[in-house]
Amino acid sequence: MSTLNQYFKKWVARVDGKLNELLPRENAYPSAIHRAMRYSVFSGGKRLRPVLAIASYEVCGKDPERALGAACAIELIHTWTLIHDDLPAMDNDDFRRGRYTCHRKFGEANAILAGSALLALAFRTLSRIRPYKVGLRLIDGIADAIGSVGVIGGQVVDKLYENKEVNLPALDYISIHKTGHLIKAACWTGCVIAGADKSKERHIAKYGECIGLAFQVTDDLIDGDGYRRIMGGKETRALAERLIAEAVAETENFGKRGRCLAEIAKFILERRK
Amino acid sequence: MSTLNQYFKKWVARVDGKLNELLPRENAYPSAIHRAMRYSVFSGGKRLRPVLAIASYEVCGKDPERALGAACAIELIHTWTLIHDDLPAMDNDDFRRGRYTCHRKFGEANAILAGSALLALAFRTLSRIRPYKVGLRLIDGIADAIGSVGVIGGQVVDKLYENKEVNLPALDYISIHKTGHLIKAACWTGCVIAGADKSKERHIAKYGECIGLAFQVTDDLIDGDGYRRIMGGKETRALAERLIAEAVAETENFGKRGRCLAEIAKFILERRK
Repeated sequence: MSTLNQYFKKWVARVDGKLNELLPRENAYPSAIHRAMRYSVFSGGKRLRPVLAIASYEVCGKDPERALGAACAIELIHTWTLIHDDLPAMDNDDFRRGRYTCHRKFGEANAILAGSALLALAFRTLSRIRPYKVGLRLIDGIADAIGSVGVIGGQVVDKLYENKEVNLPALDYISIHKTGHLIKAACWTGCVIAGADKSKERHIAKYGECIGLAFQVTDDLIDGDGYRRIMGGKETRALAERLIAEAVAETENFGKRGRCLAEIAKFILERRK
Repeated sequence: MSTLNQYFKKWVARVDGKLNELLPRENAYPSAIHRAMRYSVFSGGKRLRPVLAIASYEVCGKDPERALGAACAIELIHTWTLIHDDLPAMDNDDFRRGRYTCHRKFGEANAILAGSALLALAFRTLSRIRPYKVGLRLIDGIADAIGSVGVIGGQVVDKLYENKEVNLPALDYISIHKTGHLIKAACWTGCVIAGADKSKERHIAKYGECIGLAFQVTDDLIDGDGYRRIMGGKETRALAERLIAEAVAETENFGKRGRCLAEIAKFILERRK
């Protein structure tokens, strides 16, 4: 576990450095939005998604620095979802990670605009990826993953069930789309930049799918919400374990090189126990 | 003028057909968001921006169909800005073009999500543009034009002056960014897809800049708002005429081929007189 900690520590520092480079300065005009964007991006996130992009790259290629820009684009997209999900019209949350949410700190208009600006910046960052063909392929795949039949679709359905008892198929839809799709896209992004062949891409995509859903399932285990409310603690735990075992099995296709991804999968299961 | 009407009629039909192809069906799950997206995209807009993209293409290249996808992406982006600008946290408008605004019809959450989904779909549409290099260049330029120092930045400053008397430099900033940048980007998009050289690109960009600002200035003339309140009707009219004359002068660099863009510029000045 300490090796994984070191891995995260190393790459979180690189990701934060790159995000700092990508984001406009706080005092760049109009500063209200740049302060809001930076406040939400640098708010103590674990950087799981960018680290997954980099670890997935390392399974298939050398020089993981090449995945750093795209990894940061994924984190910008993740931050957009958090800002907009917290809005009064959505989950109406005042706090996230022990600090005021973006709209509580900067007002609702700035929060909506800061979220959208992070999304635009993410696509701008992806447009810098070379070779050109890979850049466009990533933009296609990521835009699809976050769109109306992806992450956004998951949030739509989540809102549909806001004051209703959710059933298992609906909960699966919400979790796979709202949480799973971006985690899967992060993994896929890394191996596409590494130029992995289709078979490796499929293994990584399956890995990403399993840990993406497992991430939400374990969240529910911790919070006593969602899956735990429908299936009970024991079944929910078993589901999470099954998903992580499936993810780990995918990493075994890469021999030794797959170990880091396997460790991350196990970390998702064990976190905050 | 009737030739320009025919030109619009022809291309609006093509744009609408392509938008219909690009947007998910109304009954695609989750249908709430797809109905909201389609409601706002097909709400009687003039399609000025996509027609500008196509007309700018025609000044520099043959087969304007090649610009159709990107032209539609620009319209999707425009619709995103309209939906989000109408939100309660922004301008809080209940009606647009005589119909309920998106959030009044589908709820605030769906409106926020539909706007963002249109933005994601726009980038996905741009990722399909070939050659690859052109696609990435457009995504870079358009993402920059709409970001925190572009269209979004304009809206941030507009909100800053919400209950204050706006001065001319601030009004220029708001109009150039909020309205001008996307109109300029539409023109630029067309000529980039046509593979125009840098000199032609500069003429078209300057044209787009002039008509973009003129569009807002003439809006203010009609509504008695903004420029008209600060400068008075006569000066505002003179400013609009000066901008349109500048735009028309740019089209003269293209000889006969520039006539359509010149007609569109004049139309912007004369509309709803």
